[in-house]
Amino acid sequence: MTDVKSDIEIARAANKQPIREVAAKLGIAEEHLVPYGHDKAKITAEFIRSLEGRPDGKLILVTAVNPTPAGEGKTTTTVGLGDGLNRIGKRAAVCIREASLGPCFGVKGGAAGGGYAQVIPMEDMNLHFTGDFHAITSAHNLLAALLDNHIYWGNEQKIDTRRVVWRRVLDMNDRSLRQIVTSLGGVPNGYPRESGFDITVASEVMAILCLARDLKDLEERLGRIVIATRVDKTPVFARDIKADGAMAVLLKDAMQPNLVQTLENNPAFVHGGPFANIAHGCNSVVATTTALKLADYVVTEAGFGADLGAEKFFDIKCRKAGLTPDACVIVATVRSMKMNGGVAKEDLGREDVAAVTRGCANLGRHIENIGQFGVPVLVAINHFGTDTDAEIDAVKAYAAAMGAEAVLCRHWAQGSAGIEELAHKVAALADSGTAKFAPLYPDAMPLAEKIETIVKRIYRGAAVTMDKSVVDQLAQFAAQGYADLPVCMAKTQYSFSTDPSLRGAPDGHVVHVREVRLSAGAGFVVAICGEIMTMPGLPRSPSAERIHLNMQGYIEGLF
Amino acid sequence: MTDVKSDIEIARAANKQPIREVAAKLGIAEEHLVPYGHDKAKITAEFIRSLEGRPDGKLILVTAVNPTPAGEGKTTTTVGLGDGLNRIGKRAAVCIREASLGPCFGVKGGAAGGGYAQVIPMEDMNLHFTGDFHAITSAHNLLAALLDNHIYWGNEQKIDTRRVVWRRVLDMNDRSLRQIVTSLGGVPNGYPRESGFDITVASEVMAILCLARDLKDLEERLGRIVIATRVDKTPVFARDIKADGAMAVLLKDAMQPNLVQTLENNPAFVHGGPFANIAHGCNSVVATTTALKLADYVVTEAGFGADLGAEKFFDIKCRKAGLTPDACVIVATVRSMKMNGGVAKEDLGREDVAAVTRGCANLGRHIENIGQFGVPVLVAINHFGTDTDAEIDAVKAYAAAMGAEAVLCRHWAQGSAGIEELAHKVAALADSGTAKFAPLYPDAMPLAEKIETIVKRIYRGAAVTMDKSVVDQLAQFAAQGYADLPVCMAKTQYSFSTDPSLRGAPDGHVVHVREVRLSAGAGFVVAICGEIMTMPGLPRSPSAERIHLNMQGYIEGLF
Repeated sequence: MTDVKSDIEIARAANKQPIREVAAKLGIAEEHLVPYGHDKAKITAEFIRSLEGRPDGKLILVTAVNPTPAGEGKTTTTVGLGDGLNRIGKRAAVCIREASLGPCFGVKGGAAGGGYAQVIPMEDMNLHFTGDFHAITSAHNLLAALLDNHIYWGNEQKIDTRRVVWRRVLDMNDRSLRQIVTSLGGVPNGYPRESGFDITVASEVMAILCLARDLKDLEERLGRIVIATRVDKTPVFARDIKADGAMAVLLKDAMQPNLVQTLENNPAFVHGGPFANIAHGCNSVVATTTALKLADYVVTEAGFGADLGAEKFFDIKCRKAGLTPDACVIVATVRSMKMNGGVAKEDLGREDVAAVTRGCANLGRHIENIGQFGVPVLVAINHFGTDTDAEIDAVKAYAAAMGAEAVLCRHWAQGSAGIEELAHKVAALADSGTAKFAPLYPDAMPLAEKIETIVKRIYRGAAVTMDKSVVDQLAQFAAQGYADLPVCMAKTQYSFSTDPSLRGAPDGHVVHVREVRLSAGAGFVVAICGEIMTMPGLPRSPSAERIHLNMQGYIEGLF
Repeated sequence: MTDVKSDIEIARAANKQPIREVAAKLGIAEEHLVPYGHDKAKITAEFIRSLEGRPDGKLILVTAVNPTPAGEGKTTTTVGLGDGLNRIGKRAAVCIREASLGPCFGVKGGAAGGGYAQVIPMEDMNLHFTGDFHAITSAHNLLAALLDNHIYWGNEQKIDTRRVVWRRVLDMNDRSLRQIVTSLGGVPNGYPRESGFDITVASEVMAILCLARDLKDLEERLGRIVIATRVDKTPVFARDIKADGAMAVLLKDAMQPNLVQTLENNPAFVHGGPFANIAHGCNSVVATTTALKLADYVVTEAGFGADLGAEKFFDIKCRKAGLTPDACVIVATVRSMKMNGGVAKEDLGREDVAAVTRGCANLGRHIENIGQFGVPVLVAINHFGTDTDAEIDAVKAYAAAMGAEAVLCRHWAQGSAGIEELAHKVAALADSGTAKFAPLYPDAMPLAEKIETIVKRIYRGAAVTMDKSVVDQLAQFAAQGYADLPVCMAKTQYSFSTDPSLRGAPDGHVVHVREVRLSAGAGFVVAICGEIMTMPGLPRSPSAERIHLNMQGYIEGLF
């Protein structure tokens, strides 16, 4: 293993270009940028509108096998592939998600890639960045304040205060706020009721920002949010209490995508970051569509493994935004294949070709699944120093047997020089015209059937179970006019099943849908299978205790 | 009254200069700016450090009579005077506070001046601006999350969970969050306890940011925040749970002052905005001291009327930052003098010289009070169209009798052209060397005596009363080493007394101190006299309902 510096050391040593020079590579003139410092900028809505009618570049999705504690490096590979495509002379841009602030204070870690495949400035990206998430927090909580204020001043809408579904959000890991009672203290403080806070990335406003085409679409979607139920059981929308206009005003700047750069000074769009369980887990539609107008190749990623992330990318984001992906890269590592093959984390350093091959069942399943969407697949083996040639060959052989070529990539240690081969093959595949993208199910399929289709065809479960109350709820959504919405599955990311310990490629399992929720503004129905945490807590020894500014004013302890 | 456009129309028609050109007027090179868009920038900490040793310009405080519903125009006059000084050839800058987001959604209104004396971009200033308040919200709530997390994981510090004083904050008017119970829902969510949210401007972190000299001082002050009491009654500091480093990291950018411009393209520092009741109500020390190094005249303001704002500016901000003000301007209007003289709001349009003269008792009292700090005074009569010559003359005569010249100013309608006379007189007064600034009381005076001194000499009350529990609390603060801190009075802004309906110049009243609180990080003891609201609510018909983006993408309904 070569001697590699820490992520933050590499990032600080980077030869950063002024953001206007990075923008110029995509043909964006300085006047169309709103600078945030010298290394971050938003792209103006006016400029984005002016791009209408231009042809689109090729869209490449980077997804992964089911995550394991071994780490896969999906963002690292997305960034590396973008740099690799630029290296071989293609005009390419990457599109990734913004990071949530809260988790940074729990465990050390960043969300900007790693090694020599990073997006910079990484400190900003992991802290306030351009303020988008703060704006989402404000807009979300304004709606909450207006809702309680409406009840306080007479409740003209006849809201059933036991049936308020709109909670509040903070971009903070704070378990004490999960379940609270508000409006205590008597008459001046309103009517006490149970409520709670989620983390900002779990906000429907986040999902809406990431799916809205423009400000007008954003405002309409905000107005469609269901916040409560009336005494007569009809839904109360955000527009019913006239919250949509002010929320859109708060989100005006946040809607403009952010441009930063990779370590190799290539353009990176970093915009939006919805949860990949109760939301769809992709960067914003605005960023992706803008990048497609400006670059010949756009490399983007989706949350978690391909069973959750890629499925939602195809069935929610691409369906709704009219995107047609041209190629897909599944990231796998020898280590994660070993863990999928039953090896414990502490034994990952020891060669075990048989375990790798066993674990490749997980990879193989994902290769098959992507094929169901009509998108051609390559596998990126994200190289670790402990990998042996025999293990790498085992992954390649397995992938080849499944009809996908696996390419070894050393971008983490070498930057774009380590991923040239994959870049050539991805460009060729994307240009080949072999993609025949189609979502997994049609809009018109009934909601319960959509869930069943995903469970059976993607998760390979034998059956879906749900209580009568859930069946009734789906029927009610359909009756209210939401039958055509896609379904957003919320289940564990660690397994095809709902049992996180079931690695590899399980089948025949039963998936129980515990609850369904309507995200009418975002435009999907969430099916919750198992416990989904929407407000994380901090660990016993949170990294916040070690984060500080050193004598030079640099941030320490965050990465 | 001349035909004057609305604030927002004037602001939008402004001939805005790129912020680097505005900065150049103060000798700030572009490399020392961190741009936020093309019209806002932060000034780097490195550049600020490089200014050490430079001589300071003259410091001019703009304060006001006690506020009335008639409006006085303190920020408008601060901005106008800055423009006026520039107009007469002086290198001048203004230093004002940032606006809070929450109240914008309650009642229509801005905090960037008005008419032809405004700071721009006004929309940004009233919304997210450069994200400072969001950073303060995050840092404050991180401390709260770490505190509850500490208790959750075993409470090593033996915190008495009934005696946690650190609450949470949001920059939102939300009465339902004033009093809540947190950590419901069983073991995974922690130990239920009573708590609540304040608005962000009421956060001690806000006061700390505004009083800290630099990042190191900031971190030390954050560490000194008292968050709870142990079972053994000793105070628990933020540093005891190792929160100070991460909080400082979150506030790193927010500590750098913001530079924007007036309508006449003169430099304006807009930085920090603590409450003027439970905190000291001034813009940041860093902004003021930076402006003093760069401009020959710095015009700044303090919250509410002079009894609260100017007293705290002198006794807290100037004392602690070593600032020596050279002149003071008290803003008065004919209308506010009339209201102080007993006229109802609906009758303000009718000439009433006798009422004006009666009301001037309020102005006269403030003139006297400023004199006690050794700072020479001018009065700015902020002109309204309904003012008559006889009324204006009455104010001038009263002020003259009190030893202060009153100057009629028409900056609201005319910009700097309307305030030339005041600018000349302020410059001459500041240059005269007549100021002999000293705080009202020495550090060594006992805390209770400090309160009494302010009440008797500034409020002209006859006596201070406090329950034994408050007396004991002050003794405890002293025993803990806080005897030398200044006192921050929290009382109504509408009267010298604690009765908001008592206008004019009451005396002989009794001031009851209901509660005292220690802001050990900010460095003052708060004495609360009467009801102080730290989390506002929204009105029956909040302005949020009318705020929206129009077809051109402009914000409507905010101003």
